Amino acid sequence: MIAEAALEALTSLLGDRLSRSKTDLEAHGRSESHFPLTPPDAVAYPASTDEVAGIVRICVDHGCPMIGWGAGTSLEGHGLAVQGGLVVDFTRMDAVLEVRAEDRVARVQPGITRERLNEELRATGLFFPVDPGANATLGGMAMTRASGTTAVRYGTMRDNVAALEVVTADGRVIRTGGTTAKSASGYDLTGLMVGSEGTLGLVTELTLWLQGQPAAIAAATCAFPGFNQAVDAVVETIQTGIPMARIEILDAASVAAVNGYSDADFPLMPHLFVEFHGTEAAVAAETEQFHEIARDHGCTGFEGATRPEDRTRLWRMRHHAYWAILASRPGSRAIVSDVCVPISMLSQAVEQTQADIAQAGLQAPILGHVGDGNFHAILLLDGSEAERRAAEEVSAAMIDRALAMGGTATGEHGVGLGKLKHMAAEHGAAWQIMGAIKRALDPQNLMNPGKLVPQGS
Amino acid sequence: MIAEAALEALTSLLGDRLSRSKTDLEAHGRSESHFPLTPPDAVAYPASTDEVAGIVRICVDHGCPMIGWGAGTSLEGHGLAVQGGLVVDFTRMDAVLEVRAEDRVARVQPGITRERLNEELRATGLFFPVDPGANATLGGMAMTRASGTTAVRYGTMRDNVAALEVVTADGRVIRTGGTTAKSASGYDLTGLMVGSEGTLGLVTELTLWLQGQPAAIAAATCAFPGFNQAVDAVVETIQTGIPMARIEILDAASVAAVNGYSDADFPLMPHLFVEFHGTEAAVAAETEQFHEIARDHGCTGFEGATRPEDRTRLWRMRHHAYWAILASRPGSRAIVSDVCVPISMLSQAVEQTQADIAQAGLQAPILGHVGDGNFHAILLLDGSEAERRAAEEVSAAMIDRALAMGGTATGEHGVGLGKLKHMAAEHGAAWQIMGAIKRALDPQNLMNPGKLVPQGS
Repeated sequence: MIAEAALEALTSLLGDRLSRSKTDLEAHGRSESHFPLTPPDAVAYPASTDEVAGIVRICVDHGCPMIGWGAGTSLEGHGLAVQGGLVVDFTRMDAVLEVRAEDRVARVQPGITRERLNEELRATGLFFPVDPGANATLGGMAMTRASGTTAVRYGTMRDNVAALEVVTADGRVIRTGGTTAKSASGYDLTGLMVGSEGTLGLVTELTLWLQGQPAAIAAATCAFPGFNQAVDAVVETIQTGIPMARIEILDAASVAAVNGYSDADFPLMPHLFVEFHGTEAAVAAETEQFHEIARDHGCTGFEGATRPEDRTRLWRMRHHAYWAILASRPGSRAIVSDVCVPISMLSQAVEQTQADIAQAGLQAPILGHVGDGNFHAILLLDGSEAERRAAEEVSAAMIDRALAMGGTATGEHGVGLGKLKHMAAEHGAAWQIMGAIKRALDPQNLMNPGKLVPQGS
Repeated sequence: MIAEAALEALTSLLGDRLSRSKTDLEAHGRSESHFPLTPPDAVAYPASTDEVAGIVRICVDHGCPMIGWGAGTSLEGHGLAVQGGLVVDFTRMDAVLEVRAEDRVARVQPGITRERLNEELRATGLFFPVDPGANATLGGMAMTRASGTTAVRYGTMRDNVAALEVVTADGRVIRTGGTTAKSASGYDLTGLMVGSEGTLGLVTELTLWLQGQPAAIAAATCAFPGFNQAVDAVVETIQTGIPMARIEILDAASVAAVNGYSDADFPLMPHLFVEFHGTEAAVAAETEQFHEIARDHGCTGFEGATRPEDRTRLWRMRHHAYWAILASRPGSRAIVSDVCVPISMLSQAVEQTQADIAQAGLQAPILGHVGDGNFHAILLLDGSEAERRAAEEVSAAMIDRALAMGGTATGEHGVGLGKLKHMAAEHGAAWQIMGAIKRALDPQNLMNPGKLVPQGS
């Protein structure tokens, strides 16, 4: 619950940008995956850093939880107000504040989406490379340490956020990081904030590293007789030092769903979708080298996509794969697993997962960012309790196996609500250190409480 | 001072690997730059993680400061026991514990030096790319977030440490990070520890990302009429997207010192030293493209170095440049500045620094990692108080100017003792957040006290 006095103070600060309408509360209580509706007590729409700082001071005075909100595309319920309180929706803070082309940086507000950022950058010859598929906001992407299809080449949000402005839990506005290529000056607070899921503060501004738009881009798709052969082709490509900009794997079930949803006709076999960025000559050579390696591993139906419209269609299909898989079983929701393993363990991890899925009698297409060892089983749920339990067991087994292989419970979706129960197993005593940092920076536990760190300590 | 009871407990743990000999204390009280001799009260030489944990528990019980020590190559006095206490020398923990070629990771103890690590890796076809020049230990390099000549291509220690084992200030052994290409699971404690200068714990093991040895390497040197032209050539090379593996700049005074020390005969003009890594065809093309750009900016005397022995000689000259510059004025010591600015500001920052040096009547050759915007003025000191004061003023002005340009007081040497006084100006309120993290993780302030965070708070 949120105190009346807090609501009054917030209304006096924000006017009608403090909302308690049922529609608004429900819109900010919804998740894109399987979590139940969890409406907050109120939603704030700040328009400036000063307003965010004001919101934080009011909430601290009244012990009111604060949860940041971007595009609401989290798959792990990051934005759900599980202890009630105020959702701070950043969609009105969505400006590009500055682009410095020579230093390849852009300063943006957290509510801008990655698609709009890249539209605004188009004329500069630069782009922001992190691409989680969903049209998320940059603030949300930073807070969950998002990555996606291009991480194999350009890294994750950890690598692409240069600096942050953050309102900390005491209402102070701090700046972390900078726009130099490197610095050895003190603790890496930017790195600490990226992936902290709003538990240490509210981000009000991001400075991002940009990339030059490649002179040439070539994509291709190819089919393999088995998942393992596709993975082996990728491992060999990496070892050969061929720089892939994207390398995605889809199992036969994912391909079937994509065919149905996107009116495509890929053969029903495991596929790789690959992309190269560089000079005309380099991407041509890399495509050919990759084709040779893929052929050695039994690939068939190698099909290039160099025209922009063909590439756009290809990656749109990949980005819509989650929705395609949901649509393949009308009315279903899903538990989306997100383990990531050392690449040497990837084939084994997927094979054992597929066996678990078959044994449990579940429908769960698998696809992933194979170059990073990160894959998702989309565990479809029909709504029955039995199926949910079976899916949760498969998901937990995937995670236990990934951890035993030196992997992680979440490659890119974050902890949120779904992975909290695996944190102790993954991090051991280091999880307590995370808790100590949280208590030091947010002693009242008001910043997205109930997430990421040990609870009730 | 260290309590007698603590010394007894440490001796009972370590036997003769707890030393109080004058020679040992002085060897661990010395700095490679201008800081006065600061011997600790004792030196410990642990041989295992368990022993380090034992040391920490004893020190915590007796309120004794602990300072990690690697190769003693810090330029900012990181290892000096300014509040007395125990130096923990890691040179007996110098093993390569595991190399997993398929995942491109090596697990090592902190006391191994980067040169020996790369010798041990040679047969695997892999190497560890971070190269600060000095033959530092990997533990020391991680703690100072070291970088050096190759950061423009391979990043700093921030990018190349995958995981750590750390003994925290409560004597617990934690593991941070992992060997997956990415993870969204919790706070990035590895990133927090890297660059923390031993103020949050003692690192007992590192897992490092390795790189494939390039099929071909080509280096080159070239002279420019002025510093600006050289910088402009580098900026254009970066913007063209030509991937340089190293790109170093030396002013005419640095070149003169190198000539004298290394028996070379470079013309007395600003120089770039550059290196390309890749396939035979790619490095040949990149060298030619770079040469064209350099020519457009007035470069003369472009000289390739593709034979391994020529490249080795070239980079040895570069790595010895600090000693060459010291030797150019026999008996001198130096204040080594280390600012880093956004690359768009580099020419201006160097020009104004050169003007300051001339006006102060100092000898201070300038060289740097130009691709990162990071440069060093080696401010030579003859021992007079007046010259020291003048050098400190020039150094402080460089830092103020760098901060005004959006830069940092230290690109790669770290804070140590030399940069502590600039932290408030650089980080503002964020420095207080660093202090809060320090207090949370080391409440007794025993881990390298007197460094990095706000003091006396």
